[in-house]
Amino acid sequence: MSDDVHMTLDQVHATARDICIAHGYSRDHATAIADTVTAAERDECKSHGLFRIPFYIRALREAPVSPDAVPSVQELAPGVVQVDAHFGFAPLALQAGADALTERARRQGIAALCVVNAYNVAALWPEVERQAERGLVAFAFTAAMSYVAPAGGTRPLYGTNPMAFAWPREGKPPMVFDQASSASARGEIQLHLRAGKPIPEGWAVGPDGEPTTDPTVALEGAQLPFGGYKGAAIALMVELLAGALVGDVFSFEASERDGAKTGAPCGGEFMIAIDPGRCVGDGDRSAQLAHAERLFSRILEQEGTRLPGDRRYAARRRTISEGVTVPRALYDELQSLKRT
Amino acid sequence: MSDDVHMTLDQVHATARDICIAHGYSRDHATAIADTVTAAERDECKSHGLFRIPFYIRALREAPVSPDAVPSVQELAPGVVQVDAHFGFAPLALQAGADALTERARRQGIAALCVVNAYNVAALWPEVERQAERGLVAFAFTAAMSYVAPAGGTRPLYGTNPMAFAWPREGKPPMVFDQASSASARGEIQLHLRAGKPIPEGWAVGPDGEPTTDPTVALEGAQLPFGGYKGAAIALMVELLAGALVGDVFSFEASERDGAKTGAPCGGEFMIAIDPGRCVGDGDRSAQLAHAERLFSRILEQEGTRLPGDRRYAARRRTISEGVTVPRALYDELQSLKRT
Repeated sequence: MSDDVHMTLDQVHATARDICIAHGYSRDHATAIADTVTAAERDECKSHGLFRIPFYIRALREAPVSPDAVPSVQELAPGVVQVDAHFGFAPLALQAGADALTERARRQGIAALCVVNAYNVAALWPEVERQAERGLVAFAFTAAMSYVAPAGGTRPLYGTNPMAFAWPREGKPPMVFDQASSASARGEIQLHLRAGKPIPEGWAVGPDGEPTTDPTVALEGAQLPFGGYKGAAIALMVELLAGALVGDVFSFEASERDGAKTGAPCGGEFMIAIDPGRCVGDGDRSAQLAHAERLFSRILEQEGTRLPGDRRYAARRRTISEGVTVPRALYDELQSLKRT
Repeated sequence: MSDDVHMTLDQVHATARDICIAHGYSRDHATAIADTVTAAERDECKSHGLFRIPFYIRALREAPVSPDAVPSVQELAPGVVQVDAHFGFAPLALQAGADALTERARRQGIAALCVVNAYNVAALWPEVERQAERGLVAFAFTAAMSYVAPAGGTRPLYGTNPMAFAWPREGKPPMVFDQASSASARGEIQLHLRAGKPIPEGWAVGPDGEPTTDPTVALEGAQLPFGGYKGAAIALMVELLAGALVGDVFSFEASERDGAKTGAPCGGEFMIAIDPGRCVGDGDRSAQLAHAERLFSRILEQEGTRLPGDRRYAARRRTISEGVTVPRALYDELQSLKRT
């Protein structure tokens, strides 16, 4: 590991932020992107960490991304808030809509956030974790480029279409999962390509529709949904929520629009937040959260189990004090990006 | 197939209803149960059709099911409605809450229905289809008995925990999926047992934690989630929504409560309904629905694909005019149940 470079999380944040500013992002966008990238490094989600910075910079050159769009927040219904990102990247738009979503969920019991016209290459767990830290149950759904075959098909149509879910816990970080509806995240295939390693069977088919373990062939072909037709149904649901429902594009339309193949999809995101206290008679959520802990205990008493998100939180406890390591090649690429 | 008995859908409904009334169900419960069972036969979801009637009757004898509970509907928040089934079966409770959910979703943009104290052995697609026929996007989640191992574990903890999703279509039945978060529905294993056939690999482990294809051993062991840890995460989410969130039991608690092993779980169900028109600026959903049709066309232009629910709708078109067939053994069992 002598080829890895050690960085503190503050250095990660400053590096991400400085590069974004150097390439023309507004201070607000640069900070929001750095927040997201740093959270990913902190939780050792490497495929959404500093690895993504070149995407953010390339998108600015090659796609009509706004480097300084100011997201606008609008109430569409008592329980529905829309954030128009105006073709900026998503992290700032999500920050802009977070308080309105929380406030509506507490007032109405359940509320939705419709993000439109947002470029997005980040994970979804930061926004659901944020709501759950405020005591709410939260969902998030977003589409992407056309990468994944529909059930029974062999050509790309859906995005990798992650959905995330968070459940609040008293005195502990929330239970959070964030999973692609494809068998693997696209970033994982890209990491295999970068590392020169074959991908597992079941992740993808090539352009000929035949199964492949070659990451290059997989990226040219179609990824497969997880769990067969059931994962494909989840992918379809995500397309409908993050596309037609919020009034934005489907993955295949985002791909058609991205002539430059920047890999930075522009589209919608849909979130739901629910106040558990408003789903029982008394408005007090402490009994529900205590009840959930009984389920978590039952899971953990079986050998070989863990809760979704626990690996991230373990990494977080470690990296906050110890920092992270970044591959030398990526580190050098970032240094050259700093100099513009 | 000479051993199968032909029935019209009216005969199916009358048979289900008459048996329920003969065994003590109120007219309202008997009709709601017959509606649900008939819808399943009509759509050739055999494992939720007349096959379920003996469960409904046995539950009445062996579990503290109320045969005549009148569900009560209460608004807990502007966007949250609770239906207390008072330990009756779910179909009547779901009918009782449906209008309130629709009305809140239209008014607030998004609304939730929390069903508690309901016995439930039915599929979820009827209630989401009902909301989608009214132009709404709908989700439903319910838990069950302790049947499915958590990610990494080998002992039963979760229910088969279906989630259902419906998207409205203009002039066509909604796009609906309803899928267990287990690799198979429990009813499918029961049908294999009844037919004397082995189950596919990957569906279950035995009580020793080892994989099995024997339906008897599988029913004594643990079912497996679909798609590995991702399906298990969906199962966990469903437990939290249909259990702790609505203030009802988890699957393992329902199992502990069901001393008589009736297989009729009593617990909660959680639904969300969203008015697409309220998720865009203008309140008009026609553009969103037309947009969704573009995605459906793209799916169907790939060979080997179909939309979720299409097989049910094809069966529906056929059985409405032609009726259904029922295995002789089941038919005879139903006839004897009619005579109490």
